Formats: sequence, structure tokens, C-alpha cells
Amino acid sequence: MAEEAAVRAQAETVRRLKQDKADADEIAKEVAKLLEMKAQLGTDEGKHKFVLKTPKGTRDFGPKEMAIRERAFRAIISCFKRHGAEVIDTPVFELKETLTGKYGEDSKLIYDLKDQGGELLSLRYDLTVPFARYLAMNKITKMKRYHVAKVYRRDNPAMTRGRYREFYQCDFDIAGQFDPMIPDAECLKIVHEILSDLQLGDFVIKVNDRRILDGMFAVCGVPDSKFRTICSSVDKLDKVPWEEVRSEMVGEKGLSPEAADRIGEYVQLHGGLDLIEQLLQDPKLSQNKVAKEGLGDMKLLFEYLTLFGITGKISFDLSLARGLDYYTGVIFEAVLLQQENEHLEEPVSVGSVAGGGRYDGLVGMFDAKGRKVPCVGVSIGIERIFSILEQRLEASEEKIRTTETQVLVASAQKKLLEERLRLISELWDAGIKAEMLYKKNPKLLNQLQYCEETGIPLVAIVGEQELKDGVVKLRIVATREEVNVRRESLVEEIRIRTSQC
Amino acid sequence: MAEEAAVRAQAETVRRLKQDKADADEIAKEVAKLLEMKAQLGTDEGKHKFVLKTPKGTRDFGPKEMAIRERAFRAIISCFKRHGAEVIDTPVFELKETLTGKYGEDSKLIYDLKDQGGELLSLRYDLTVPFARYLAMNKITKMKRYHVAKVYRRDNPAMTRGRYREFYQCDFDIAGQFDPMIPDAECLKIVHEILSDLQLGDFVIKVNDRRILDGMFAVCGVPDSKFRTICSSVDKLDKVPWEEVRSEMVGEKGLSPEAADRIGEYVQLHGGLDLIEQLLQDPKLSQNKVAKEGLGDMKLLFEYLTLFGITGKISFDLSLARGLDYYTGVIFEAVLLQQENEHLEEPVSVGSVAGGGRYDGLVGMFDAKGRKVPCVGVSIGIERIFSILEQRLEASEEKIRTTETQVLVASAQKKLLEERLRLISELWDAGIKAEMLYKKNPKLLNQLQYCEETGIPLVAIVGEQELKDGVVKLRIVATREEVNVRRESLVEEIRIRTSQC
Repeated sequence: MAEEAAVRAQAETVRRLKQDKADADEIAKEVAKLLEMKAQLGTDEGKHKFVLKTPKGTRDFGPKEMAIRERAFRAIISCFKRHGAEVIDTPVFELKETLTGKYGEDSKLIYDLKDQGGELLSLRYDLTVPFARYLAMNKITKMKRYHVAKVYRRDNPAMTRGRYREFYQCDFDIAGQFDPMIPDAECLKIVHEILSDLQLGDFVIKVNDRRILDGMFAVCGVPDSKFRTICSSVDKLDKVPWEEVRSEMVGEKGLSPEAADRIGEYVQLHGGLDLIEQLLQDPKLSQNKVAKEGLGDMKLLFEYLTLFGITGKISFDLSLARGLDYYTGVIFEAVLLQQENEHLEEPVSVGSVAGGGRYDGLVGMFDAKGRKVPCVGVSIGIERIFSILEQRLEASEEKIRTTETQVLVASAQKKLLEERLRLISELWDAGIKAEMLYKKNPKLLNQLQYCEETGIPLVAIVGEQELKDGVVKLRIVATREEVNVRRESLVEEIRIRTSQC
Repeated sequence: MAEEAAVRAQAETVRRLKQDKADADEIAKEVAKLLEMKAQLGTDEGKHKFVLKTPKGTRDFGPKEMAIRERAFRAIISCFKRHGAEVIDTPVFELKETLTGKYGEDSKLIYDLKDQGGELLSLRYDLTVPFARYLAMNKITKMKRYHVAKVYRRDNPAMTRGRYREFYQCDFDIAGQFDPMIPDAECLKIVHEILSDLQLGDFVIKVNDRRILDGMFAVCGVPDSKFRTICSSVDKLDKVPWEEVRSEMVGEKGLSPEAADRIGEYVQLHGGLDLIEQLLQDPKLSQNKVAKEGLGDMKLLFEYLTLFGITGKISFDLSLARGLDYYTGVIFEAVLLQQENEHLEEPVSVGSVAGGGRYDGLVGMFDAKGRKVPCVGVSIGIERIFSILEQRLEASEEKIRTTETQVLVASAQKKLLEERLRLISELWDAGIKAEMLYKKNPKLLNQLQYCEETGIPLVAIVGEQELKDGVVKLRIVATREEVNVRRESLVEEIRIRTSQC
């Protein structure tokens, strides 16, 4: 008993000392930074300059950007619902240990919260690990859900290309033990539907399988212990040429040049069912158990995709690796083939706009008894899609409304504020979207101009005479037509006239 | 001369910083030694016990909770849109200095991010300060916007009462220089509309004005320097009795007992227009310039609220203070008067569900030249509303669907997976919400059961005979009726039958 208490006290001491050390390190870092700044500046250190900005790698969404964002979300969410998904939400931060050991080399990009006493927390890095944690915590073994939310990565932002440190992910996942490749095929169908629906231009969905990669690494002579790190190197092939990847494998990661060259041959391959058949006959790969399993499932997947009629946009690509540690089977990534800016001479790829794969082991990592729940899912990388939609809208003449207001309550004469307030209150209570200018005596011209600027289609004008007659003058902004409407019919009249818009 | 002094001061700073660093290094060394000893001792402190939970004060939203949440959001957002608001979004974290000095005593509840190099960041504490930062940064002087997003407070959570560390706020704000009290009245109208619409039971909206409070403090003999801290004490009156608040004022905050007693008399007052008139005649208050201004505006506000027909739920309440530093004029707070659990003997207040006020100085704090943009806004505290709606739903018999699926694609015989895939693909492409079981040969009973469980109203059954005949058997789950529908009419038939639901 006493021993236990002693051990606990000791653990507490160590914890505190660790914290002290962390604090000390923190101070040391801070001091070093200060000294550096000091050296550079030399003079007036106290002068505080206020910086008015959002944090690095983040941005605000104004009303126009929100209108575009809402459109894209609508397309994506309606697709997820079309496929019968439920929706969940999880906290923006998780216990730090929940995220530990799930992301491989990318873990360094996780945002940690400051230790202010209590639990150690980190901002979520994706929506997949929180989903797995949710399933394990609630002992759910079967679920089809979507989740649209922001995730956080301390990456080097390239914001012009739609890469941010805070960005939305739109995830759809299917958890449960099912017959092979049916949910996997549905995920690819979903990517195909969404990218077609958003009309982002031509795209291709690259598909591979972690088991094929692992088998390939094995037959190429990569030691087991190096599978994950070599996989990370292969993952860079969409950004850097093979020669660079090869030298990373050999130089940094200590792979033999022969093994690297053998990998080099495989990762050039991409195709369809024909390539799958060819590899199933490959003298080396076909001898490898996991590769054979992967290839068999890939064949089945392509059969299902043929029934869905979407193989035209699917490419089985041996260079596709995906960085994250948790994938265990099929992996895929959708890339747009050219930018919409058609005046550019060279079509530039904006890179990956969706990705995903199968992760059969992740939920088990959270279960005390290691019980597995197989999962497959897709994540739509919405920020790049926004960038494209924004550019396109800017180039077009289209004017987007940022409000839905149906009618402006206005007056032509002075001293009618009370009447405007009374009328607008009636309209609000009847569910009409109505605005008024917040002035006691606004000019009619200003009121009409406000409608032009914001796209409000109708103006309800109150005046002395109209009040006496029990009517309201309704003006149609587009045609400048004006009609007197009996006050008790006004709501109905506004409804009819704005349902046509 | 001054230069020499500056150089000396600088040298002193550097010396101190070096000393700090030396101290830090010393501590670090010490800690390293201790950790080494610890490792040699070899107790199993390393044995890791994994905790499967969400961080303290946070929760997941499962599909059912999401359905409730969506309902509440719909009501709130449609009200905001009815009043002509645009929508914006800002990052979840801000530069730490953006939040500094805005929240008074509550600043200690701000979540900071760990310094991982780069900027110092904090999670947003509300949506008001980010809005002000957004206006100043974009030099916007007029805007009506809403923002629905999560905010973060390291508060002591009381989750059963709907108090969390991560929670949604639904904010509506009007920025711009307008005629007095018109936007303020609209904010109160909005609170009234939303609380009525959500049918949460009886409520009252307490209203006060910071200028009336300040004037009251002045005439009671509170020194200027103590206004804010005494205001914080008054703010606690909704939770603790006057005696406790008084002893905080006198004991902790050093206010004279006489001043406290004078305050005590005022803060008992609440009423309507009559009380405003009475205070306008108050021999002391009426002599105070700011109090008089505040009372004059309060009178105007009540006139507008009378036109809106909502004064029945409004109470001018001198004990209302609101904790936040940034308010400058009208403040208000809506409280539910009793819990929905009617079997409880004592009606328990679930506390504040909405609050807001005028903050004319906040935007100016972000502007290099201090240019002001007057603002007034309201924030709906949605978590408590969720708690009530959840409790109510649990008590009721209502079954909520968590998906919108219109039809399950099923088969009665084996070996029809391919046909099911083909048909469901057609339905998805036509925009029909469709699901199927992810099994090669599911039993018809299991498929029908899935519909019962999830509320899917229709089943499209493919079978050998139907395929030959070019039809699909459509089963209406509720009535068990079955009809053969020609394949080319199926989409239309499903649309018609589900539009009735």
C-alpha cells in the first residue's frame, strides 16, 4: 500500500520534473530567440508593433467565399447522403496520445496545445483517427458516416495552390466486416460522382493497394523494417522525379541500389485490368502471398467499377503510396489533370483533391482487446476545390448574392420609422426575409440603391397615403414596376413573386 | 546621454537574459540526471495505460445528437437569414495578441497553443473578437453577418447542465454607424424569434446598459478604477446571493461598505418603461451624464420593442452586468424560466441561453488609427438548448431518422450482386438516395429488417424473373405492398412515392 503511494509520488515527481525541464527548454528557446532578435534589431526593443492578420496558413472566409464554399459543401454532402451516410462530429482536439503513432513521419506536423494543467491535447490532424477512436469508444462495429470539419497541420502552406494549415476535410467512411471490395468500390464511385458534379475538369483516380506495395518491396529486397519509410519515399513520386526519390532511398534510408532500381521498374507501371492480369503472372510478385491477395482484390475492385461504369477515370498506379501509416489495403487518390485557367499555356496539375483507402487495423489500436473493425473511407480535399471555384468565379461575370433577403421595407417620406418597424416585424413573423435601413429618415434613392447592390428583388414602400388606404406599394426592382397590395395580402404576394426568382 | 542610458539598459537586459539561460541550462542538467537515476531504478512507470475518451469538457455528437443539432441550427440560421445577414468564417485560432486585453478576468480561460516555433496562437474564446479583427483587417465599416462555430474556454465544465469547454456559438452582429437603438432592437427581436421558434418554454430577456451601470457605480461612490472589477462582481448575481457578492466587493475588492450598500439597492430593481421613467427622475442618477444617456436610449429601445410587440418578455434589470470587458452600451441576456422536466417539483433555471450587447470600441482596438466601428450583436448559447432538446426527445416516443435514404436495393435470390450494383449505380446517378447491403448474397429478411431499423421507406428488389421482364419489384415497407415497376420508370416512381413522406 505504502509502496504504491510511494511509487505514485515518485511518478508525480518525475512528471513534474519533466514539466520543469520542458519549461526550462521552453525558456532557453525563448531566450535564444530573443537574443537573436535583439542582435538583429539592435535598437528600440520595447516598441510593440501590432500585427493585424490571421495566423500563418489560415484565412478568413468572407460572404462571397462562403457562398462558394456552401455550394461545394452542398454538392459533397448531398452525395454522402445519397449513399446513405449518417453524420457525426467530434471535438477539434483529442488527447495527444490518441493521435500518437498513427501518422508516421507526418506526426511532426501535429499542433499541440500548451500544457496549462490537466490533459495534454493536440488539434486533430485528420478526421479518420477521431472516427476510429469514436468507434472503439462506443463499441460500434458497423457504421457508414460522413464528417465535414476542419483539420490542422503545421505544414509549409502554399496558399495560392490551396494548401493551408487549417483546412476542411469532407470524409465518408464505411466501417464493418463485409464482403471484399464492395464498400471500397462505393468510395471510388463517390469520388467520381463528386468530381463530376463539381465540374472541375478532367481528373483521374489513381488506385493501388498497400499489400501490393509491401509485396513489391519484399520481392525487390527491401528489409521488413524499412517498408514504411520506403513507402514514404515512394509517396513523393507525384512531386519529385524518380532520381531524387531513389537517392533518398539509397542515401538517407540506406537501401541497396539494386533494390531501389527494382522498385524503380515497378513504380513506373500504371494501367487497368490488363496490368493487374500481367502482374498476377509476374514471376516474382505472384509468388508473394500479400501481393497476390492485393492483386486479386484489385481485380475484383475493377469488376465492380466496371459495373459502375467509371473505369475510364481509374488508373491502377504502382507509384501511389499515400503517406499515412494506417492504411492496410486499397489506397487511392484523385488528381485534376489540368487547371481551369485555360489561357495558361502549360496545363498545371493542382494536385490531389481526394484520397483515401482501407485501414483495417486502426480501430483495433484503440480497443483494449485489440478487436478490429475493418474500415475504408475517402476524404475530399475541399480547399483546392475552393481555390479553383474561386478563380473560376472571378474570371466569370457571375454575380453571387450573399444574402437571401426577399424584400426591403422602405419609406418615401420622413417620420415613418415606426411604420417601417411595425411592417417589418409583421413580415419577419410571417417568415419573410426582410431588411430595412437602420436610419430614422432614409432617402428613397438610398434604399433603392441598397437593393441594387445586394440583389434584393422587392421593395415594400410605406407612405402616408398607403397607410390611409390600408395598402403597401410593392416595387419590383428589376422592372421598376409598382403595384399597390392590400396589407393583408402582402405576405402572400411577396411569397409568390419571390418563388419565381 | 539618453543614448548611453539606452545602451546600458540594453546591456542589463542581455545580462539578465544570459543569466536566465544559464539557470535554465542548470535546471535542464539537473532534470536529465534525475531522469537517468529514475531509469536505473527501473520501476515500471513506463507501463502505459491507454485512456479512451474525449478531452475533459468535450463530447462527440453521434448521428442522433447531430439530427437534433441540425434542427436547432436550422431554426437559428433561418432566423439570421430572415434578418438579411451574410455569413463569414474565421480560423479556430488567432494570434494570441489578438485576444489579449479583450475579456477582462475571463482571459485566464483562454486555451493557448504550444509554441512549436513561429507565431504564438490561442483558440478563439468567442466569435465577437474575431469578427472585430476581421472588420478592422478588411477596413469594413458596415456589415450584418452571422457566424456559427465552436469556441473554447478552459472553464470548469458542468456538462449535465450543458456547459462545455468546446461549444458552439451562433452569433449575429450588426456593425456600422446607424441611428440609435434600431439595430439593438433587432438583436432582441432575433432572440425573441429564436427562443419562441425552438419552443423551449417560458423565457425572459434581461436588458441593461453599461452606461447605466457605470453611472450607477459613479453615484454610489465606486472609484473609476474599480468600475470593471465591481462590474464582474455584479455579474455573479444570477448565481450567488447579494450577500456573497457584497462581501466580495468589500473584502476582496476593497470597496467601502456604504458604496456596496448603495449598489445593493439599485441592483434589486427590474421592470419596464415605468422603471426607466422612475430612474430618469432619480435625483442622483439623473445628474450623471452617462447614466442619463443610457436611460434615454433604454427608453427608445423599449419604444421600438413595443412596436415589435415583444416587451412582454423583456425585463430592464439593473443587476445584469455581463462579464466581458468590451461592452459599451446596451447589454442583454435571455434566461429560460423553467426546465422542461415537468415532473420536477422545483422549476430549475438552466440559465442563460443567449446574450449580447453593444461594443462600440472593439474594432477600434484593432485599427492603427483607432477608427471606431460601432457594433451590436447577439450570441445564442446553443449547447444548453441542445441539452434541453435532447432530454425532451429522450422523454418522448419520437423516433428520428439519421439518414435520408429513399430506397434499399435488394435481391431475393443469390448471385445477384452484379445486378444490384448495376441498379444502385443507375439510381445514384439519377440522384436517388439509395443503399444496399455490402454482402454478396444477403438474405431478404435481413435486407427488410435493415429498412425497418433505419426507416428506409422503399425496397427495390431485383430477381431473375424481374430481370427477364425488364421490371423491378418495388416494396413499400410500411404497408408491405409490392408493385412491379418498369425499370425505366423506377426513378420517377421512387421520387413520387418518397415526396409524399
